[in-house]
Amino acid sequence: MDEQRILTDHVLRMTDTLLQAGVKEAVISPGSRSTPLAYAFAASDKMQTYMQVDERSAAYFALGLAKASGRPVVLLCTSGTAASNYHPAITEAFYARIPLIVLTADRPHELRGVGAPQAIDQLNMYGKHVKFSVDLPIAEDNEELDWFLERHVNRAVSVALTKPMGPIHLNIPLREPLLIDFDRKSKASTFVERIHGEIELTAIQKQSLSALFSEAESGLVIAGELPVGFDKDAFWNFAKRLQWPVLCDPLSNLRSEVPEDCRTLCIAHYDAILKSDLFKSNAAPDTVIRFGAQPVSKPLSLFLKKCRPEVFIAVDESPEFRDSLGVVTHHLQCSPESVYDVPEQQEASSYREQWSSAEQLAETETLKYQGSAGDEGVIVKTLFDMLPDGSDVISGSSMPIRDVDTFFCKTEKDITIFSNRGTNGIDGVVSTAFGVEATRKRPTYLLIGDLSFLHDVNGLIVSRFHKTNLTIVILNNDGGGIFSYLPQASVENHFEELFGTPTGLTFGHIGAMYDAQYAAVHTVEEFQAELQKEKTKDVRIIEVFTNRPVNVKAHRAYWAEVVKGLEGNE
Amino acid sequence: MDEQRILTDHVLRMTDTLLQAGVKEAVISPGSRSTPLAYAFAASDKMQTYMQVDERSAAYFALGLAKASGRPVVLLCTSGTAASNYHPAITEAFYARIPLIVLTADRPHELRGVGAPQAIDQLNMYGKHVKFSVDLPIAEDNEELDWFLERHVNRAVSVALTKPMGPIHLNIPLREPLLIDFDRKSKASTFVERIHGEIELTAIQKQSLSALFSEAESGLVIAGELPVGFDKDAFWNFAKRLQWPVLCDPLSNLRSEVPEDCRTLCIAHYDAILKSDLFKSNAAPDTVIRFGAQPVSKPLSLFLKKCRPEVFIAVDESPEFRDSLGVVTHHLQCSPESVYDVPEQQEASSYREQWSSAEQLAETETLKYQGSAGDEGVIVKTLFDMLPDGSDVISGSSMPIRDVDTFFCKTEKDITIFSNRGTNGIDGVVSTAFGVEATRKRPTYLLIGDLSFLHDVNGLIVSRFHKTNLTIVILNNDGGGIFSYLPQASVENHFEELFGTPTGLTFGHIGAMYDAQYAAVHTVEEFQAELQKEKTKDVRIIEVFTNRPVNVKAHRAYWAEVVKGLEGNE
Repeated sequence: MDEQRILTDHVLRMTDTLLQAGVKEAVISPGSRSTPLAYAFAASDKMQTYMQVDERSAAYFALGLAKASGRPVVLLCTSGTAASNYHPAITEAFYARIPLIVLTADRPHELRGVGAPQAIDQLNMYGKHVKFSVDLPIAEDNEELDWFLERHVNRAVSVALTKPMGPIHLNIPLREPLLIDFDRKSKASTFVERIHGEIELTAIQKQSLSALFSEAESGLVIAGELPVGFDKDAFWNFAKRLQWPVLCDPLSNLRSEVPEDCRTLCIAHYDAILKSDLFKSNAAPDTVIRFGAQPVSKPLSLFLKKCRPEVFIAVDESPEFRDSLGVVTHHLQCSPESVYDVPEQQEASSYREQWSSAEQLAETETLKYQGSAGDEGVIVKTLFDMLPDGSDVISGSSMPIRDVDTFFCKTEKDITIFSNRGTNGIDGVVSTAFGVEATRKRPTYLLIGDLSFLHDVNGLIVSRFHKTNLTIVILNNDGGGIFSYLPQASVENHFEELFGTPTGLTFGHIGAMYDAQYAAVHTVEEFQAELQKEKTKDVRIIEVFTNRPVNVKAHRAYWAEVVKGLEGNE
Repeated sequence: MDEQRILTDHVLRMTDTLLQAGVKEAVISPGSRSTPLAYAFAASDKMQTYMQVDERSAAYFALGLAKASGRPVVLLCTSGTAASNYHPAITEAFYARIPLIVLTADRPHELRGVGAPQAIDQLNMYGKHVKFSVDLPIAEDNEELDWFLERHVNRAVSVALTKPMGPIHLNIPLREPLLIDFDRKSKASTFVERIHGEIELTAIQKQSLSALFSEAESGLVIAGELPVGFDKDAFWNFAKRLQWPVLCDPLSNLRSEVPEDCRTLCIAHYDAILKSDLFKSNAAPDTVIRFGAQPVSKPLSLFLKKCRPEVFIAVDESPEFRDSLGVVTHHLQCSPESVYDVPEQQEASSYREQWSSAEQLAETETLKYQGSAGDEGVIVKTLFDMLPDGSDVISGSSMPIRDVDTFFCKTEKDITIFSNRGTNGIDGVVSTAFGVEATRKRPTYLLIGDLSFLHDVNGLIVSRFHKTNLTIVILNNDGGGIFSYLPQASVENHFEELFGTPTGLTFGHIGAMYDAQYAAVHTVEEFQAELQKEKTKDVRIIEVFTNRPVNVKAHRAYWAEVVKGLEGNE
């Protein structure tokens, strides 16, 4: 059958090029139009395939895989709203700079715009939330297409991998019959290799930067979210040259495995420390250098916005550097590594001392923090206390990441934190966690609020098709806990209706449905006991019942203690 | 506070204009940036508000509301991926021609593109899947904005309501603080009313159309999906003038409340009838007129494509008339009503007789259909047998709508069928059903497959915030049943893995989680018994366990019987 041969060659040309370009995983949602591509991936022993029937969750699962590996990951779905369901995760991937390779099967031209089933206008359907989008040609017996497809698919992956990395979209029209010849091998490829350099500072640029460092009297390093594979040793060597305090966002992953001689440089509790007006008025930096994304901490943002350091350097490979505070004065568009050898060795200053003694005080306060029943902070603190060395935590947006920021003290343990901070959505978090675990295969803990868990409850479907290993800690405060911290909470009208949104749902039933190990706990002691129990199922759910008002009160009391300590000390 | 007064006036100008333009319902998902709009809707006693925390489901719920009422319905969410989650339902609304008014709260200009949290590029983010998209101005103390906002919001609703109807998108930047003054009333509006005419044929156009009708020797009317409020009496009077057989898609809703003198005109079983090659070879029409969307039936499509009637008229108010078969020869771009008085009274023909006797035979075969345990057809047939007069059915895509097409016989009862056929997705169906019920408040039945139910299991969340009344019949064949009918089923490699996708999930746990009345049934008798039981909860779930191979076999046996009857008769 000539038709089948042509289709098979066409599809293999694409899938083999993807493999050659370094793709190793494909997340597939079932559908008819995508059949030839699904077959080609499933038949290749070089491609690890995953199934997920909910495309929204599938896309977040792929995001988790790519986030944890730093490699491009393929997503494949059929035509129609299946493709629309990818949009949330694609948006997150775009802003979080994750290389997703989105393949949407499409109807051929003659079935577009004529009311055919599952036919929507898929051209550029993700708008500005992908870095590249192309409508590929239909299979043809035409040699011109061979090199075109190969180059084009290769280039698309290159675009995804060029920093800032991000998602790309290949729209692939396929005509019936959709069956391929499994015995056919792909034709030889002509393209060999992509060699990709880094953006480096020139010697002259380094000289002027070095002067900026030397002239600083109160310098601060800020480390926001950094990608997996970020070279921590090189970074700490840089920090040791500067001898500046390093404010480490939990997603910098610099709070774990802190080298002994950097412990005093590493500041983990700036979020609490910067609640003190007195501290803030004495600790304004004149120079800041930031690596990675903007940190989670709101007090830090307010502090930086208020004191407006004279020099604020953002190291960011993207021309669209992140600066929602309008404080950046210098944009270094280069690799972080390029900056490390710039500063000359500096002496420890009293400014550094100021930060490290505040850090010590706040750390002591955190270590003795007891919270109270219903408080979420103490649960998060307990989780970090008990985490085994060599484990991963995926944190939900909204409250969990803020509690991680507050209660994750620096540690010698190897603990890696992941969170979707491209757009800070509460959606897709369960799937992201499964994706991270599938890549790293370490003990993995998901820390998540009840609404966020509910939003992506379908993330669990992946556990029906694949071996998984995840502990899910749900902080169930029955609704939108974060709103209790916002000005809306002071307005009684419609608060619970619009913001509290208590669903009254609990998740024991979900545990049973997915054959998970489930426990409902109400106190820290119960939580500790559960964490200590042996994990006997692929998925373990520990649902912690908390209380929004108690939670707010406990947090405020903790911050007050830190502030009292700092201001008493002065 | 001047700031609050300006924001309040700005927001009320928008919400009051929406009310004046005929919007009565708003579906809101919790979030911070959208607070002023959420407050304004919640505070208005003219606006019915609904809450749904999963934005994907929220959008499909709004789609259900608008589909059932024919009125525009507002969707409101915060900034970020919340808005991306609307994309699937917006896509469906665009192709199904449903007037959704999508309001996405956004960050003000100074927080765009700078890495601010939950800030994504929302301008034109739904691409070609909305009819209109605008980024509105930020609140200002500027009278020029008053009339602009009022006219612009009004016009946006007009665009949504202009046929073919469809979704529109208002992106609304809002600056903190986000609180409004609840005591403030909106300023007087200056715009009064929108008066909207219909597209009518001219006298000359009617004359030439009338000639086409008179010249036909074997004429066929095809009624695809028709909108709620479609005037059935007027339509049947038209059909009686023509005396042509009327092939009624289940979504035409012409199979129910069939007038006594139109029973022989109404053909419900063409899907089975057109499995007979002998019938097809004798029943090719020379003239066809189609109202509404293209029907569900694949045998009908194949028949029309094969016989290519000399005259094929599509009545469609859209310039982009639907014609995936490439058979339409005449496009009447006008209201259906404009066509009704065109034909002169015609005599009943032998062609009509041919169809009505085939219909009678197929109907008899259907009425005596028994299926077998594990078959889904007999469940669908039984559901229709037992439905109370004055009830609504929402059918899932994929297999359920095909079984509805096959087993829903014409009836005197008032039964209205809804389905998402804009893009035929299996997503969002549970939410759509809740939306339909919330509008119509009649006994409502959702007929849905297990994967489709699972996909939108979060549709149930709405039942936690609002009074609902829905019976859900899940046909659980553990996976993707429709693929068993496709060529893929003949290829053993990877079939279950890629297409069958059995999750092994059952939904009793979901029933318990949502405090639903739940029953698992395995036979027709059990199903009947469950349907007869009193409905004691807002949500009732009847999970019917079926079997994919048995189902395929039973359907094929039924079609064989019909074909045998037809071909024996000739």
